[in-house]
Amino acid sequence: MVVQLDNFFRPRSVAVIGASRNPSKIGHVILKNMVDGGFKGRVFPINPEAKDILGFRCYKSIGEIDEIIDLAVIAVPAEFVLKIVDECNKKKIKDVLIVTAGFGEVGNHKLEEQLKDRLDKYGMKCVGVNCLGVFDAHHRFDTLFLPRYRLTRPKAGGISFVCQSGAIGSAILDIAAYNGYSFSKFVSYGNATQLDESDIIEYLLHDESTKVICLYAEGIKDGEKFFETLKRTTPVKPVIVLKGGLTDAGMKATISHTGSLAGNKDVFFGILNQVNAIRADSLEEMFHIAALFEKKVDFTNNRIQIITNGGGYGIITTDAIAGSKHLRMADMSSITAGEIRKKAPEHMNIGNPLDLLGDATTERYRDALNLCLADKNIDGIVLIALYQTPLLTTEIVEVITESHRNSKKPIIVVSTGGEFTELLSKSLMERGIPVFNFPTETITALDKVVNYQLKHKHVKVVNVVKEEKVILGKMKTKHKAKPKATKKKKK
Amino acid sequence: MVVQLDNFFRPRSVAVIGASRNPSKIGHVILKNMVDGGFKGRVFPINPEAKDILGFRCYKSIGEIDEIIDLAVIAVPAEFVLKIVDECNKKKIKDVLIVTAGFGEVGNHKLEEQLKDRLDKYGMKCVGVNCLGVFDAHHRFDTLFLPRYRLTRPKAGGISFVCQSGAIGSAILDIAAYNGYSFSKFVSYGNATQLDESDIIEYLLHDESTKVICLYAEGIKDGEKFFETLKRTTPVKPVIVLKGGLTDAGMKATISHTGSLAGNKDVFFGILNQVNAIRADSLEEMFHIAALFEKKVDFTNNRIQIITNGGGYGIITTDAIAGSKHLRMADMSSITAGEIRKKAPEHMNIGNPLDLLGDATTERYRDALNLCLADKNIDGIVLIALYQTPLLTTEIVEVITESHRNSKKPIIVVSTGGEFTELLSKSLMERGIPVFNFPTETITALDKVVNYQLKHKHVKVVNVVKEEKVILGKMKTKHKAKPKATKKKKK
Repeated sequence: MVVQLDNFFRPRSVAVIGASRNPSKIGHVILKNMVDGGFKGRVFPINPEAKDILGFRCYKSIGEIDEIIDLAVIAVPAEFVLKIVDECNKKKIKDVLIVTAGFGEVGNHKLEEQLKDRLDKYGMKCVGVNCLGVFDAHHRFDTLFLPRYRLTRPKAGGISFVCQSGAIGSAILDIAAYNGYSFSKFVSYGNATQLDESDIIEYLLHDESTKVICLYAEGIKDGEKFFETLKRTTPVKPVIVLKGGLTDAGMKATISHTGSLAGNKDVFFGILNQVNAIRADSLEEMFHIAALFEKKVDFTNNRIQIITNGGGYGIITTDAIAGSKHLRMADMSSITAGEIRKKAPEHMNIGNPLDLLGDATTERYRDALNLCLADKNIDGIVLIALYQTPLLTTEIVEVITESHRNSKKPIIVVSTGGEFTELLSKSLMERGIPVFNFPTETITALDKVVNYQLKHKHVKVVNVVKEEKVILGKMKTKHKAKPKATKKKKK
Repeated sequence: MVVQLDNFFRPRSVAVIGASRNPSKIGHVILKNMVDGGFKGRVFPINPEAKDILGFRCYKSIGEIDEIIDLAVIAVPAEFVLKIVDECNKKKIKDVLIVTAGFGEVGNHKLEEQLKDRLDKYGMKCVGVNCLGVFDAHHRFDTLFLPRYRLTRPKAGGISFVCQSGAIGSAILDIAAYNGYSFSKFVSYGNATQLDESDIIEYLLHDESTKVICLYAEGIKDGEKFFETLKRTTPVKPVIVLKGGLTDAGMKATISHTGSLAGNKDVFFGILNQVNAIRADSLEEMFHIAALFEKKVDFTNNRIQIITNGGGYGIITTDAIAGSKHLRMADMSSITAGEIRKKAPEHMNIGNPLDLLGDATTERYRDALNLCLADKNIDGIVLIALYQTPLLTTEIVEVITESHRNSKKPIIVVSTGGEFTELLSKSLMERGIPVFNFPTETITALDKVVNYQLKHKHVKVVNVVKEEKVILGKMKTKHKAKPKATKKKKK
């Protein structure tokens, strides 16, 4: 069943209960970030002791507010949470986000059960407890109680990240933003007292701006629900899952973290495989895979040409492709080889990898790239650009951007380096081109992406136009119905 | 046999043959970098057409120079190389570095053989052909023909990198410098026409400033020599090897890159294993392992305590440790647990991982870190510091530095994030503390490091003092003799 969660991501009015004048308090940081982030809705701080906070009139209680409140963000100590929930119910608030810790994760199961009963009785939806809250890059709504100078908020894009652990989510958001990746929504759902990962995934399945869903989960409370949700979701959008608590020691640690029971890992992986969710083996890998999906990289036509100015990088990438499950090395046509030969220096070998050599110019890249893209024996390009070499001008950014724009074939770029490299890589990413640091890890991630895409290819082929219309139609009916299995294809 | 290669890394005088006034020519960039890098020796540009280059008097030929030349760096087209080598011989130059390409790697085997014969006949030592040359961070000698604004040169330190491929080496140097790692020497040896990876490794074995050796190799020309060299080296210094050309396709590509035959990978890995060299599976991993050795991280006493302010990071790290071969989770003593309890907030669980929670202060980190370091049940710390949380002040850098300085137990730090995180991480690294971005990859690398260290532990125990004296004595005799197997231990 689709749970309507719009109020958690784009509320028109928000009450921050436990707002504080003290800048070191969570209740202050939440309010500040909401304002600094450019949130357009109305904000009502609640604190019985304060008259105003950050220029906002402060209310003694939620009952004092005359207007309709879409969402209450609750940041009061655990012992006051039940009372606040009662007050929210009186005020007819149906959506609450509780950041407060001190429930099941510290053995206080009774309080958490009481809370759950209360929420169910009132028909309230709740994200939390013991969580970091939400971030919506498109609607600039931000309840994360982490300062903006410490946690860079990413640009608006297509990755949504559902994360039981707030720390993992925030660290990844931060590094991803720094590296130029863009996000749609972030949810840290903590103990999952009421809404769980499945509810959130189901919502994201129908969320237009979400193109790929990442999940870090420690324990799944309702395996069957999870299974059914993923089964519905993965034909439409890829879901990448990183599981915490795989080993006995790790499992033990999940209990005190989010009060979860991590469950049997083989069962878990079995489920992921059955429903065609993508298993990430590390945070870094999750991040690589998500970026490939977000940039709509499609290497299901899998004959790859490597173009490089570093011979060794070409070889390492060749090894990775040859060792992959779904990718293979393209066999350039003799016509293309002849054309490249014409303009190439004598000492350059024409093949795959195509090593343009350390004295490669931007012009040599342009010729090679465009000739390879036009070759019917080549389906896509892994372009290695090592900007340390002196003859590669910054115009390479334009060259790659133009080829990427004009060709239907996928191009991914691999560049390793320091400040100068980062500059060019970020510039390329801003133009929508997927860029990665190291070859081996990139190919491993790409292989997992293609594995997912291939499994869904037959679905797509059946009647892609019709199916897409169905989806779009259902989207408009406020996500009430289940979409059928389908997948949009980048053309 | 130890080949004396000092002239390649700290020559007193260098001729740059093929020096150019044109800033886009390799012969210009080499000269410029040598000067800009702060090289203290004398520099003689050779170019029959120019009077002076970059303020240096230019010579028409090497014969014109009156002084003794320790090293000739040759950057003329392939067809002129033999003639230049003849002239160098006349001038009694015994060490030449040939960056020129266009030999065996493009099928011009005859020319390369002629060159080899000539070098042997003259008793010359040669790094190259088809290479990027050398970089010595301690002696500020730099023949790399890559602009300094594109390839940041790293600080002086203990990692030496031997790299058949110039591109891999330069990209890694660049990103490593950017991330605060420090290097001793870098050698790109290209086609290994004469000096090969084994000669260079043997030299580095005796090089005092080299603490760890990284090797990227495509093909090994003399397997037995390689085997014997590694056997002598690994008991003294770790050697990390990344092999290019593992697959059939990759192997094919090595032929045109450096004219190497990549050889059977199982044989190669068998050799690595026998001689206890460390196999890296990717560039990124090689880099992680090298950094751990460079910072002298020793987790052979393997009971690890995790301290974190992110629960999920603690769990992922626990999974990685529990899944490792040599590392295990420490079991904190009840006394330590009691002491931590005293100062901890009520909702904090005391255990391993020790989750200091999202509201962790610097003070809470200080207490936990020092109490854990004093616990006899704990051998070392993986300290996860996620700087996104607001109560962790920048003083954490001082706290970690002080504990690291005062304790004999190893500490490694894991931090993921953007600009603010990078700032603090770099600051820690400058103080000698090993810092990494992601938990899983770090633990995988650490496990390989411990695997190496354990294999050598018995050697160390035999008679470490005596053996060290032997080594030092032999060092002073200008590396003429083979050292016996031993290994220095950080205390």
